Amino acid sequence: MDMLYFASDYMEGAHPSILQKLQEQNFCHFPGYGTDPVTQSAASRIRNACHCPEAEIHFLEGGTQTNAVVIRALLRPYQGVLAAETGHVSTHEAGAIEFGGHKVLPLPQSQGKINASDLEAFMDAFHADDNHDHMVMPGMVYLSQPTEYGTLYSLPELSAIRRVCDRNRLFLYIDGARLAYALSSPQNDVTLPDLARLCDVFYIGGTKCGALLGEAVVVPKAGTIPHFFTIIKQMGALCAKGFVIAAQFDALFSNDLYLHIGDSAVRLAGRIQTGLSDLGIRLLFPTPTNQVFACLPDSLTARLREHCVLAFMEKADDTHTVMRFCTSWATEEAEVDRLLSMLEALLRDERLRAH
Amino acid sequence: MDMLYFASDYMEGAHPSILQKLQEQNFCHFPGYGTDPVTQSAASRIRNACHCPEAEIHFLEGGTQTNAVVIRALLRPYQGVLAAETGHVSTHEAGAIEFGGHKVLPLPQSQGKINASDLEAFMDAFHADDNHDHMVMPGMVYLSQPTEYGTLYSLPELSAIRRVCDRNRLFLYIDGARLAYALSSPQNDVTLPDLARLCDVFYIGGTKCGALLGEAVVVPKAGTIPHFFTIIKQMGALCAKGFVIAAQFDALFSNDLYLHIGDSAVRLAGRIQTGLSDLGIRLLFPTPTNQVFACLPDSLTARLREHCVLAFMEKADDTHTVMRFCTSWATEEAEVDRLLSMLEALLRDERLRAH
Amino acid sequence: MDMLYFASDYMEGAHPSILQKLQEQNFCHFPGYGTDPVTQSAASRIRNACHCPEAEIHFLEGGTQTNAVVIRALLRPYQGVLAAETGHVSTHEAGAIEFGGHKVLPLPQSQGKINASDLEAFMDAFHADDNHDHMVMPGMVYLSQPTEYGTLYSLPELSAIRRVCDRNRLFLYIDGARLAYALSSPQNDVTLPDLARLCDVFYIGGTKCGALLGEAVVVPKAGTIPHFFTIIKQMGALCAKGFVIAAQFDALFSNDLYLHIGDSAVRLAGRIQTGLSDLGIRLLFPTPTNQVFACLPDSLTARLREHCVLAFMEKADDTHTVMRFCTSWATEEAEVDRLLSMLEALLRDERLRAH
Amino acid sequence: MDMLYFASDYMEGAHPSILQKLQEQNFCHFPGYGTDPVTQSAASRIRNACHCPEAEIHFLEGGTQTNAVVIRALLRPYQGVLAAETGHVSTHEAGAIEFGGHKVLPLPQSQGKINASDLEAFMDAFHADDNHDHMVMPGMVYLSQPTEYGTLYSLPELSAIRRVCDRNRLFLYIDGARLAYALSSPQNDVTLPDLARLCDVFYIGGTKCGALLGEAVVVPKAGTIPHFFTIIKQMGALCAKGFVIAAQFDALFSNDLYLHIGDSAVRLAGRIQTGLSDLGIRLLFPTPTNQVFACLPDSLTARLREHCVLAFMEKADDTHTVMRFCTSWATEEAEVDRLLSMLEALLRDERLRAH
Repeated sequence: MDMLYFASDYMEGAHPSILQKLQEQNFCHFPGYGTDPVTQSAASRIRNACHCPEAEIHFLEGGTQTNAVVIRALLRPYQGVLAAETGHVSTHEAGAIEFGGHKVLPLPQSQGKINASDLEAFMDAFHADDNHDHMVMPGMVYLSQPTEYGTLYSLPELSAIRRVCDRNRLFLYIDGARLAYALSSPQNDVTLPDLARLCDVFYIGGTKCGALLGEAVVVPKAGTIPHFFTIIKQMGALCAKGFVIAAQFDALFSNDLYLHIGDSAVRLAGRIQTGLSDLGIRLLFPTPTNQVFACLPDSLTARLREHCVLAFMEKADDTHTVMRFCTSWATEEAEVDRLLSMLEALLRDERLRAH
Repeated sequence: MDMLYFASDYMEGAHPSILQKLQEQNFCHFPGYGTDPVTQSAASRIRNACHCPEAEIHFLEGGTQTNAVVIRALLRPYQGVLAAETGHVSTHEAGAIEFGGHKVLPLPQSQGKINASDLEAFMDAFHADDNHDHMVMPGMVYLSQPTEYGTLYSLPELSAIRRVCDRNRLFLYIDGARLAYALSSPQNDVTLPDLARLCDVFYIGGTKCGALLGEAVVVPKAGTIPHFFTIIKQMGALCAKGFVIAAQFDALFSNDLYLHIGDSAVRLAGRIQTGLSDLGIRLLFPTPTNQVFACLPDSLTARLREHCVLAFMEKADDTHTVMRFCTSWATEEAEVDRLLSMLEALLRDERLRAH
Repeated sequence: MDMLYFASDYMEGAHPSILQKLQEQNFCHFPGYGTDPVTQSAASRIRNACHCPEAEIHFLEGGTQTNAVVIRALLRPYQGVLAAETGHVSTHEAGAIEFGGHKVLPLPQSQGKINASDLEAFMDAFHADDNHDHMVMPGMVYLSQPTEYGTLYSLPELSAIRRVCDRNRLFLYIDGARLAYALSSPQNDVTLPDLARLCDVFYIGGTKCGALLGEAVVVPKAGTIPHFFTIIKQMGALCAKGFVIAAQFDALFSNDLYLHIGDSAVRLAGRIQTGLSDLGIRLLFPTPTNQVFACLPDSLTARLREHCVLAFMEKADDTHTVMRFCTSWATEEAEVDRLLSMLEALLRDERLRAH
Repeated sequence: MDMLYFASDYMEGAHPSILQKLQEQNFCHFPGYGTDPVTQSAASRIRNACHCPEAEIHFLEGGTQTNAVVIRALLRPYQGVLAAETGHVSTHEAGAIEFGGHKVLPLPQSQGKINASDLEAFMDAFHADDNHDHMVMPGMVYLSQPTEYGTLYSLPELSAIRRVCDRNRLFLYIDGARLAYALSSPQNDVTLPDLARLCDVFYIGGTKCGALLGEAVVVPKAGTIPHFFTIIKQMGALCAKGFVIAAQFDALFSNDLYLHIGDSAVRLAGRIQTGLSDLGIRLLFPTPTNQVFACLPDSLTARLREHCVLAFMEKADDTHTVMRFCTSWATEEAEVDRLLSMLEALLRDERLRAH
């Protein structure tokens, strides 16, 4: 029987319209480093989708790279970046931000999200501290939409965070590695134009949202980062064939593809959550996007992994582990059917053995 | 009339067999970060081509990134990298090596090449200097094959450099961004197995040699760089969909494609050189690979650029500039015909005007 | 009335025997950068005091600098340093460790101290995490003796931490900025030879312990850090006139001065603690060295500060702040008398007002 | 017979008035980190001496540290610092600037000096280069007064460099490690007020000019470097007992001491030069300050070093080496007498042997 794959949303190639676009332009000649018409076209489509005609758009290769480049470009040497203690930059980027010289200042989180009042409390304490000139000065807020736990910031929540940023001269930067899955969620009320209005910089994820690879950095106020091109080059993130990444976003932003590419993934993640609950498996908490977190007994996990690739999230207790089931734009209904049947069979078998 | 494109070898997409491979595997599911069977297959093909069954292979995204990652991974904090003063790391990487904390120690060059005796003289002077503990300690030699000036190191030249490295405990690292064009040159006598034997690390260029993007790092002695995976991640160079880059090298190393993908480019660059000479245009020097450097009068360059995209190399004098004509695996004979006709016409016109 | 000074232990010059030593050697000629006989003598005295004839000794200028230099020298790029979330490197060094490229990995603390079981739990969780190759790898443990909260690690506590380090291949580094006050504490059972036996590197504080400035780094196993001299230079921490710092340690390690220079400070800090308690002022917790932490009402603090310089530690609640009273080798009994009288008078006055 | 010491100007302690000042203030209590009245007084005296009442003054510990801190504080990440290829930052700081992430861009030099026209040519070539966005952008000029070769910039030379800086938006920073010896030179026409007028930042050397250690950074336009205090702290360069360094500058800037502390050193270096010439020893070139460079036969150097500590500069040829004789504020006439006699005797002896 074929393996099932629910470990992540970067297990397949690209949306067919992207491959077609790459095929069509394959023998065109373009100048390098994003000075080509494909890049112009893709940038223009993204500006339109964001209702932000002034925005600068830059195409980079991957998420950790993008975070490292943007954060370093925005901060001054004496500044750090505030992030949820579970934020990607805090945990799973192997110290990429610190390699660039900046401390990640951890904020408390709930379901992967920070909130405006904790942020404000942090800033108040910083300013009240007599020794703050000896401390890393917070220079920006990093958050991800959806978060690493599949949850979403609501528009009021983001707006409140923005207000604290304004009062404290903090940049607001949003990591949209999985942004398509937020935009496809029925629970989402934050649009691309909202992001362009609220953020100093954000990025629209490609790698996890149907591209072969690539992320689109949006700087709503052009000129926010002087010499950003050279900083990108210096950090090894400038793609010689910029048109290869741009073409993918050109396809993703044609016919509103990006706004709907996550629809089925979100719906199928919902089906998995219902299915797990029906089977008596505890969810860490329900999530509105494409990532599902379940507390599985380690014995079940071991057997499940013989047939299904899924991802470790964190230990729950001595005998349980939080595992992630992740759907993607490429996940098929039949795969979810098979997953749920398999789980049901394994659980039935476990119960029999227990007798 | 259509524009001509001779600015670089990264103006087109990918070799058709690469696009086909990406198409074929598009809906396969693969685990992330290079832990997939495509990566294994590509690595295995490269090991075979290098006659180096022990080698570690890593797939990165671009050349500047690869240089920054490898150099930082090999050096200790107190060490620097020796490179030709015209080396890519010395000039056109926007300080990527220094961003990682290491000095690029410039060596004199001729036609883009360093030589063993200058290297040895540098090391002797370093050791003879009473103050060398206050200086950056050379830790490795960086060179590129072919060089930024399209020239080639011969096997005796490389072997001599290796011997100086051995005597001075220097790593030898070769940047093969355009390696296919070296391997396709009739003047070349350095094979992939030679590189694997002589280098501590080298990389096989994809971006400029027929891939959409990507470079393959070869570490002949596995384990030379402990925790290289984490260093790659930390520097933002770990591709989530590693199989996207690996698939391209899998195609490039099937049926000896990589060994011959540069053949026509090298032949056509030869035709351009002959053509330019016939037209009385001075070459900077003849080159055996796919880059041609010509000293053009600025008036001619200005008119040529209306019809042909080519690249600035350096000012020659007040009225002349060294311009680069670059062919690629995708360059067609007819384009070279048109280029030479165009140059002839422009020169005729210039002469008429001069009367 | 003269101000009182209890803000820190670095408010005065140097122990008279240090000034005398500097005076005596003032017109001697010494070679630079620690290659002089004074440095040899001081190093030799420290080796003797540590019962560690093999140790390498290096003299640096200040504490933050020393932490940054040692931590960077010991770690590989992919590694971070484990430290109490209240550790000096975590909080009050303005991101010096991150500037050097390394993440400070925070551990929970109690009264400023970490413990072996939390450390072990952290390491177990790291190894159990499937994603640990994407995370910063812990490479060393940093702790301070006494801690930033004036508390002490006992010999069994340190030994237990050392065992966890051994099992996990972690370096152990101890920041001894105030080490003299530990060595003078009746509650202390950790000697210099114990530190030399348990640590990979530690430093003996001078700046806060009677020197004009300077810290002595002890590397018990010579050669632990290759090319440490050049790393020190590279980080701007190499003192041209090394003999100026060395001379101070030569004096401090003559006649056991360092072992007793903190005696009166520790005794007077004890008197302050008793006095505060007698006046009904709550201590954060009792401390066995030269730092006293008291929760003062903000109104009292404001009035006290008109006559006494003391240090902010942290907000306790909306109307109270934890303030630090710090004694030093130079603090006089009479100053403590005046402080306690002043507090008594202020409290009496507050109570009268309250009626 | 006692050794002679001409290796450097940092072989003795401090000017007696400095030791006296440290003695006098030894038991005063001062707040830390430069917030004390001694620091205010010293800063005020320096502002007066510079005719620059607005200047910010910061006291750091050493020269390499100061260069690293100032250069990093002034530059943006994509910028580098232009310096003579013989500049201290280019050669003898073990890569401290690169550790901070910035490239040192080498300029040609003559007798240790750069000039305005080479600088302008460099900037013109940079702007004319089509690829300059891929290159390190020059952000400042570093030079030293006097230079590492003991030579001096004249006021017209410095003014011309300043004009090129203005035209190219470059900061101008001057390393005054040995500034006292410039100010004491009869050939000098650049005053402290000139430096304050021409530089964005410069530093007044203490370590080599009569202090135990310490350098005074002058920022003529206050506010040029936001959050400089925190940057200094982050780079481990903030002295807890700031008053220890400040007191030394307070003494050096009392009664014009700094303006004359180098007088005898410069005069004695002149005597050495005359003496060497009289003995037929070739000078590298004559110098107007306290450093003398002579080409000595290696046999002579070997014998001289048995009795005299002097410094290696560079190899001249296979049998000769350029050695440095350095005087200081503490050098005595009799030492120069002995040096010249010794040289005469050794040369006579060599000549006898040659027969």
